[in-house]
Amino acid sequence: MLNTLIVGASGYAGAELAAYLNRHPHMNITALAVSAQSADAGKLLSELHPQLKGVVDLPLQPLTDVAGLAKTVDVVFLATAHEVSHDLAPAFLAAGCVVFDLSGAFRVNQASFYRQYYGFEHQHADWLAKAVYGLAEWQGEALKQAQLIAVPGCYPTASQLALKPLVDGGLLNDAQWPVINAVSGVSGAGRKASLNTSVCEVSLQPYGIFTHRHQPEITAHLGIPVIFTPHLGNFPRGILATITCRLKAGVTAGDIAECYHNAYHDKPLVRLYDNGVPALKAVVGLPYCDIGFAVQGEHLIVVATEDNLLKGAAAQAVQCANIRFGFAQTQALL
Amino acid sequence: MLNTLIVGASGYAGAELAAYLNRHPHMNITALAVSAQSADAGKLLSELHPQLKGVVDLPLQPLTDVAGLAKTVDVVFLATAHEVSHDLAPAFLAAGCVVFDLSGAFRVNQASFYRQYYGFEHQHADWLAKAVYGLAEWQGEALKQAQLIAVPGCYPTASQLALKPLVDGGLLNDAQWPVINAVSGVSGAGRKASLNTSVCEVSLQPYGIFTHRHQPEITAHLGIPVIFTPHLGNFPRGILATITCRLKAGVTAGDIAECYHNAYHDKPLVRLYDNGVPALKAVVGLPYCDIGFAVQGEHLIVVATEDNLLKGAAAQAVQCANIRFGFAQTQALL
Amino acid sequence: MLNTLIVGASGYAGAELAAYLNRHPHMNITALAVSAQSADAGKLLSELHPQLKGVVDLPLQPLTDVAGLAKTVDVVFLATAHEVSHDLAPAFLAAGCVVFDLSGAFRVNQASFYRQYYGFEHQHADWLAKAVYGLAEWQGEALKQAQLIAVPGCYPTASQLALKPLVDGGLLNDAQWPVINAVSGVSGAGRKASLNTSVCEVSLQPYGIFTHRHQPEITAHLGIPVIFTPHLGNFPRGILATITCRLKAGVTAGDIAECYHNAYHDKPLVRLYDNGVPALKAVVGLPYCDIGFAVQGEHLIVVATEDNLLKGAAAQAVQCANIRFGFAQTQALL
Amino acid sequence: MLNTLIVGASGYAGAELAAYLNRHPHMNITALAVSAQSADAGKLLSELHPQLKGVVDLPLQPLTDVAGLAKTVDVVFLATAHEVSHDLAPAFLAAGCVVFDLSGAFRVNQASFYRQYYGFEHQHADWLAKAVYGLAEWQGEALKQAQLIAVPGCYPTASQLALKPLVDGGLLNDAQWPVINAVSGVSGAGRKASLNTSVCEVSLQPYGIFTHRHQPEITAHLGIPVIFTPHLGNFPRGILATITCRLKAGVTAGDIAECYHNAYHDKPLVRLYDNGVPALKAVVGLPYCDIGFAVQGEHLIVVATEDNLLKGAAAQAVQCANIRFGFAQTQALL
Repeated sequence: MLNTLIVGASGYAGAELAAYLNRHPHMNITALAVSAQSADAGKLLSELHPQLKGVVDLPLQPLTDVAGLAKTVDVVFLATAHEVSHDLAPAFLAAGCVVFDLSGAFRVNQASFYRQYYGFEHQHADWLAKAVYGLAEWQGEALKQAQLIAVPGCYPTASQLALKPLVDGGLLNDAQWPVINAVSGVSGAGRKASLNTSVCEVSLQPYGIFTHRHQPEITAHLGIPVIFTPHLGNFPRGILATITCRLKAGVTAGDIAECYHNAYHDKPLVRLYDNGVPALKAVVGLPYCDIGFAVQGEHLIVVATEDNLLKGAAAQAVQCANIRFGFAQTQALL
Repeated sequence: MLNTLIVGASGYAGAELAAYLNRHPHMNITALAVSAQSADAGKLLSELHPQLKGVVDLPLQPLTDVAGLAKTVDVVFLATAHEVSHDLAPAFLAAGCVVFDLSGAFRVNQASFYRQYYGFEHQHADWLAKAVYGLAEWQGEALKQAQLIAVPGCYPTASQLALKPLVDGGLLNDAQWPVINAVSGVSGAGRKASLNTSVCEVSLQPYGIFTHRHQPEITAHLGIPVIFTPHLGNFPRGILATITCRLKAGVTAGDIAECYHNAYHDKPLVRLYDNGVPALKAVVGLPYCDIGFAVQGEHLIVVATEDNLLKGAAAQAVQCANIRFGFAQTQALL
Repeated sequence: MLNTLIVGASGYAGAELAAYLNRHPHMNITALAVSAQSADAGKLLSELHPQLKGVVDLPLQPLTDVAGLAKTVDVVFLATAHEVSHDLAPAFLAAGCVVFDLSGAFRVNQASFYRQYYGFEHQHADWLAKAVYGLAEWQGEALKQAQLIAVPGCYPTASQLALKPLVDGGLLNDAQWPVINAVSGVSGAGRKASLNTSVCEVSLQPYGIFTHRHQPEITAHLGIPVIFTPHLGNFPRGILATITCRLKAGVTAGDIAECYHNAYHDKPLVRLYDNGVPALKAVVGLPYCDIGFAVQGEHLIVVATEDNLLKGAAAQAVQCANIRFGFAQTQALL
Repeated sequence: MLNTLIVGASGYAGAELAAYLNRHPHMNITALAVSAQSADAGKLLSELHPQLKGVVDLPLQPLTDVAGLAKTVDVVFLATAHEVSHDLAPAFLAAGCVVFDLSGAFRVNQASFYRQYYGFEHQHADWLAKAVYGLAEWQGEALKQAQLIAVPGCYPTASQLALKPLVDGGLLNDAQWPVINAVSGVSGAGRKASLNTSVCEVSLQPYGIFTHRHQPEITAHLGIPVIFTPHLGNFPRGILATITCRLKAGVTAGDIAECYHNAYHDKPLVRLYDNGVPALKAVVGLPYCDIGFAVQGEHLIVVATEDNLLKGAAAQAVQCANIRFGFAQTQALL
C-alpha cells in the first residue's frame, strides 16, 4: 500500500484524484493538502465538492511542514499552480517521494520555455532533465523508472494522442501545419472566482490565438509545428479537438486506420472509432481519449475527445502511477 | 428631451438600461457612471457588454463629482449596490433630479428593516417616507408625482404581480401562507467575480431559505405573510415563480380569472394566460411578466415568469420613468 | 451468478442498468432486449450510448420469444413503457423469473388507479396484489421475498424519502398539505424524438399541475394528500424537490433531525445534511438521495435531490435486487 | 405598404421573420402560412413561439390556394424546406411577387449541384439563372433588380463574409485551402421532433465532415476550395466560425485590417474588431455578423460570429428586402 499525498486537492483535478485514489486497492490517501494561505484549509474536501460527501470526507490540511510530510508518504500528486509545483517538487523528490506533477512546471526540458511562456525563471534544470513526460500511452517504459513525472494537460494530451501516430508514421505532408481547433469546458480554467467563468459571461469563444503555451509544448514533443486555437465552451467539462491535416500523396484512409490501430490497439484508455468521429458526451466523466477521423483526397480530419479533468489530468496521472508501480494500467479508473 | 444619467452602468441591469435609453425618443444618455474605484472606469460600455458594440459605445465615467453631475441631468437611474444607492440618492434628489433606484435602499418604509436585513442603519427616513415603490402596474398614480422611485427587484415583482390581485380581492384563505418557490437566473447575483456563479459550480439549488430579504419586502407590500424559497438556476436570465395558495371556500377558477383580468387587462406588460401557465422562455429578453394559473378544489397554483433583468429591473425602471413623465408606458420597451 | 435480462435497454435508464450490471460481481447480462418493432434492434448498446463504447458493446436483441428467453434467465429488469411492462411481466413471472419493473404498471394496488391515470385497464390484479413497492430504504424485509418488485420512479422516490419519516413520525400538521415543487432533468421524458425535449424548446416550465400521476402514487404510499407540481428543467439529469410542510405545534428542528437520523443513519444511499440543503450537482451521476432541511416556526422546508436515472430508476432497481438476493446493498453502485 | 406572406412561419426562422415584419414600417404581414399537412395549421404563431404572445398572434394558415394567395401579396418569404421552396417559388414568381427564399433551392446556379447535394432534380433552370444570391453586403446592386433572392444560410454567410474580402483582395496563398471550423446552435436543425436535438443527446460534435452541402456552396461563390467542418454545439442559437488561412508572403496584419475596413466600413450589419475576436454572446439575438482576426507570420485566423437565425437567416432576408425596395438597410432590424 503506497502512502499518497495530494497537494492542491481543493481544485477540480485534485478532487478527481482523491476520488480515484479513494478506490485504489494499492494506494491510500495519507493526506490532502492545500496552500497554507488557502481559505479552504481546514474544510472537508466534501464541503467543496459535495458529490464526494460520504465518499471522501477528509480534511484539507494547510501545507506547512513539507519536509515532515514528505517523510510520511511514498507518492505525491501535485495538482498545483505551475510556480507552486516548481517550488515544491524538489523538496518531495529530495525526500525520495515519487512525484506526479499535473502542472506545466516540468513538461518541457528547456529553461527558456519557462521564461517565455510561463513568466518565471526555472531553477531546477536537473529535474527538468530527469522528468518524464507522462503521455501514458507513449512513455510507458520511461515511466517505470521515473521519479518525477510531468503529466501533460488537457489540450496537449488530446492533440498528441491524435497526431503522434501520424507524425511518427511519416504520414503527414510537411508543407502544411496541422490545424488544431479545440474547445474546452470551463473547468479547464480552474476552481477560482472569476468573472470569465460566470454562467452570464461564458459563451463559445476562442482565446490565446497564436500565443497559448500549449502550442510550443505540443510542438516540442511532437517535433513538428502546429497551429493551435483553443476555445472556451459553455460546458463544465470535456475537450473536443478537431484537427485538420494534409497527408502525403498516396496516403489512404486505410493507412490512417492501420496507423492508429498499431499505436493503440493494446491501449485500454484510447478508444478508436471505425466509422465516424466521437462526440464530447462519449467521454465526459470517463478516463478515455476517443479518436475518429475522415479522409478526403489529401485532407485528413481527426477528432479527439477526452474529459479535460480525467484523461486530461487526474486519470492520466493515476494511469502513470499505475504504470510506474506495476499495477494494472486502468486500476481505479474503470 | 430628458438628460439622463445611469450610475452602475457596468452591471447587467445597467447595460439593459443603457440599451433601452439609447432608443428612447424622449430621454438621452448624458453619462454612464461607475464607482470611482471600479476597474471598469474609462472603458467603453461595449467592451464589457459586447452585444452593445456599435450600439452604445459610451465610456464609463468614474463617479467623482456627484454635485456637478447632478446639475447636468434631469433623471438618474441608480443600478448600484444598496449602500451606494442609500448614500447617493439624497445628493441627486437635493439637486432636483428624479431618481429611479434599482437597489433595495428605499423599498420598505421602515428603518429597522434595513438594520435587520441589509446590515446598515438607514440615514434618510425622510426619503424613505417619500419614496414611491415602483411596482408599475399598481402605483401608477403615485408614480406621477414621485421624485424618488424605489423600483422593486426581480423576485418581489413576479411574486407581487401574481399575488396582489388575489390578496386585494380577498380570495385567499388566511389560514395558510402562500408558498412561493422561485428560480432565478445567475445574472441575479450581479456582474462580479465569484466562484458561486461559475459554470462549474452552478446547478439548481435553493438558498436563503427562510432568511432572504425579499420575504419581508413582499410581506410588507402585500400585507400578508408568505413562505418564499429562492433557488439559483443554471441559466443566465429569467425568473419563474410557482406559487401555491389556498383559496377561500367557494372561490372558483372563474373568480381567479376575473380577478386577474380586472387587474391587468389594460396593463401592456402583464400577459395573462387563458389556459396553462408560462414557461421561462416566453419572457427572456422581453419586458413582460407572464401569469397563468390552475385550480383544484381549494388549491390554486399561480406561475409567474419575467426576465429578472428586465421586468425585474431595467424594463420596470424605464416603465416607471415613462409613467412618471407621461410617456407611453411601453416607450422604448417594445 | 444470476443470469439477467434487461428489456428496454435502449433507453436512458436501461443503459444505466446495463452499466451497473456489467460491473456486478454476482449478476451477468445474459441479454439486452428491445421491442421487436424498435429501430434500434440489432444495434450495439454502445452505438446508442457512446459512453459505453468498449464497456458494454452487447447487441440489442428484438424481443420476440418471451417464453424462450424467460427460461434462460433468473432476473428480468423491465425498463419499458407502462403498458409493455403490464403485458410482459406476467410471462416472465410465470417462468419463475424475479422481475424488477421500472415502469408504473404495478406500483399502486388499485385497478381503478390505472384506468384513471394511465388510461388502460389493469388485467393482473393478482400480481398487483403481490407486487412489492421497491422504495428500497423502507421495504427491505418485503423485498427479500418478492418475485415482482415495482420500482418507484424519480419524483415519488425523492418525495417519499423526504416525507415518509415525517409522516410516520407524526410530525406534520394535518391541516395543511405538503407542497412538493420538483424540477426534473429532461431525461425523465425518455429517449425518443420529441420537440418538447429539444435544446431549442426546453426552459424551466411547470407541467401536469394537479394532474400528474405521481401525485396519487405518492399519496397512496404515504397515506396523506400532497400538492405535487413537477417542472421540466433545462438540464439532462437530476431531480430537486423543494417540499414545504407545516409542523405540528412544538415540533423543533431537533425533532426533525432526529427523525431523519433514525430513518436513515444506516442507509448507505441516503445522505443527510447536518447544515444546509443539497444542490442538484451533489447527486448527478451518483446513486444517492440527498436530504437537507430548514425550520422556521411551524414551517419546514425539506430539499431532496437525486439523479432521476439512478436513485430515481436504475440504481434503485439494482439496490432492490441486491436486497432481494442478499448481496451488499450498494454492490455495483458505489 | 407592401403586403407580405411568410410561408413556413411555424419554424424558428419564420417566427423571427414575423417578429421583424411586425415592426416594419413599410411591410405588413398579410398572412402566415404553413404546409397544408402541418399539425400546426390553425394555431396561432404565438402558441408555438410563446415569446410572441401579444406581439404576433396571427393564425398559421394551411397553404392550399397558392395562386389565390399570390394575387393578394407583393412579397413572399419562403422559410421552407429546399424541395418545398423549389416547388413553390415559381408559382409566386409567375404572379409577380418578389420572393425571398431562405432555403437552398436557388443558391447555386448549377443543376448538377442539386442532384449531388440535395438529392433532387432541379426543374427551374430559368429561375436558377435569374436568382440573385442574397449575401447582402456584396450583392447590393443586383438585389435592387431581383425578383428571386436566394438568401444564403448560416454557415455560408459567416464564412463568406469573413473570406470574401481576402479572396477578392488576393491576400491568400493558393497553396493551402482555408480551414473553416464552425459551431452552430441547435436551432440550425430546424423546429421538429428529433432525438438528435434533445437536451439529453446534444453535446459538441462535428458532423458532415467533408460532405456537408455548404462546402460546395461556399466554394461556388468564393471561387476557391475550402475545408469546411461543421459542429453541433450545445446551445440554441448562434454560429462561431474559426477560419485558419495561409497568407501570401508579405501580407501583414495591417493589410488584413485595411482589406476588411474597405469592405465593411459602410456596412451597418458587419462589426469589425480592432483588437481581438468576437465571442458568440456578442451576436445572439442581434442581426450582426462580427469579425475579428489575428496574424502570426504567414498564418491568419479569422473568427466570425452571427446569430444563425438572424444574420444567418431572417435578418439577412429582411436586409435583402430593405435593399430591394429601397428602404434603410437596417429597417426593422435594429
